[in-house]
Amino acid sequence: MSYRLPVELSKCYRLLNHGPTVLVSSAHGTTVNVMAAAWSMPLDFSPPKVAVVIDRNTLTRQLVEGSGEFALNIPSREMAKATLAAGSVSGRELDKFRAHGLQTFAADKIGAPLLDGCLGWLECRVLPEPQIQDRYDLFLGEVVAAWADPRAFRDGHWLFEEGQPRSIHYIAGGNFFETGTEFEIEK
Amino acid sequence: MSYRLPVELSKCYRLLNHGPTVLVSSAHGTTVNVMAAAWSMPLDFSPPKVAVVIDRNTLTRQLVEGSGEFALNIPSREMAKATLAAGSVSGRELDKFRAHGLQTFAADKIGAPLLDGCLGWLECRVLPEPQIQDRYDLFLGEVVAAWADPRAFRDGHWLFEEGQPRSIHYIAGGNFFETGTEFEIEK
Repeated sequence: MSYRLPVELSKCYRLLNHGPTVLVSSAHGTTVNVMAAAWSMPLDFSPPKVAVVIDRNTLTRQLVEGSGEFALNIPSREMAKATLAAGSVSGRELDKFRAHGLQTFAADKIGAPLLDGCLGWLECRVLPEPQIQDRYDLFLGEVVAAWADPRAFRDGHWLFEEGQPRSIHYIAGGNFFETGTEFEIEK
Repeated sequence: MSYRLPVELSKCYRLLNHGPTVLVSSAHGTTVNVMAAAWSMPLDFSPPKVAVVIDRNTLTRQLVEGSGEFALNIPSREMAKATLAAGSVSGRELDKFRAHGLQTFAADKIGAPLLDGCLGWLECRVLPEPQIQDRYDLFLGEVVAAWADPRAFRDGHWLFEEGQPRSIHYIAGGNFFETGTEFEIEK
């Protein structure tokens, strides 16, 4: 199981603020699934909320609508191959956990599993907005628990040291960017 | 005026897919403004749509609600200081264009000005969803025109060559990441 520490809810937006690609994990009844999503973002600080696009044709959509829960898992470059694969095939056709060697561990507040090897995790409960779910495939969630691998994110800050795992940003066609150099602007 | 070429609407999601921080420009009547937003994302491919969080207390909110239009401008690291400043002070207190030396040029389809020196531009018309605007400060827009500086984005792809301007990703407290190294995963 990934080593992880809780992230204060007031700081958990920082896990997503730089726009990384995420893996959305979900469960309903005995069915679990994972898909990739480049389209997610923070929505509010307190209580923390997120927005994510979940296509109507996905198994994830069915599980999230059924359970009212999902998790956003932030993969590192080491997981890019599994991330691309998780975004390319439906969980209706394939057990993506088994096919891509993805291990999971139990979340604290929700039923969806969390993905081993990720850098951060946001456990979310759907804020039901049926009209925009239906019209735009857009789901809003309140973050009810958050975690990070302290080698990558500690005391509310990402620490992407040279040679250490970094988050990734999907472009298209199997191409990603790594999260790059950090810099500071004096206010 | 920035050198720019049109971006096919079917490819314009790629300007935002990697989660860069944007500058939101807006105009209503004779009032114009610009603010920074780390919380934006693509929402659909065709017709292309975007989502962006615009706080209810901002001048931008008033201009976007008044005009039904906004532009997302994608700044480079060279514009990080102006981006931070544009996110820190209200346009009610300061002419941010003048204060930060931001030049603009006319958009093609909307009244909001586009910001010189950016890497890409998305001209958007609000898709009115009063309930989520009011409840979550969340605005959805259809992209009606898109542009990019061909030195940074060409033929539907970002080309961040060594030493050339790159997009940026805001974290918190004046800290940003640059968009990092590109890599490809074979499907």
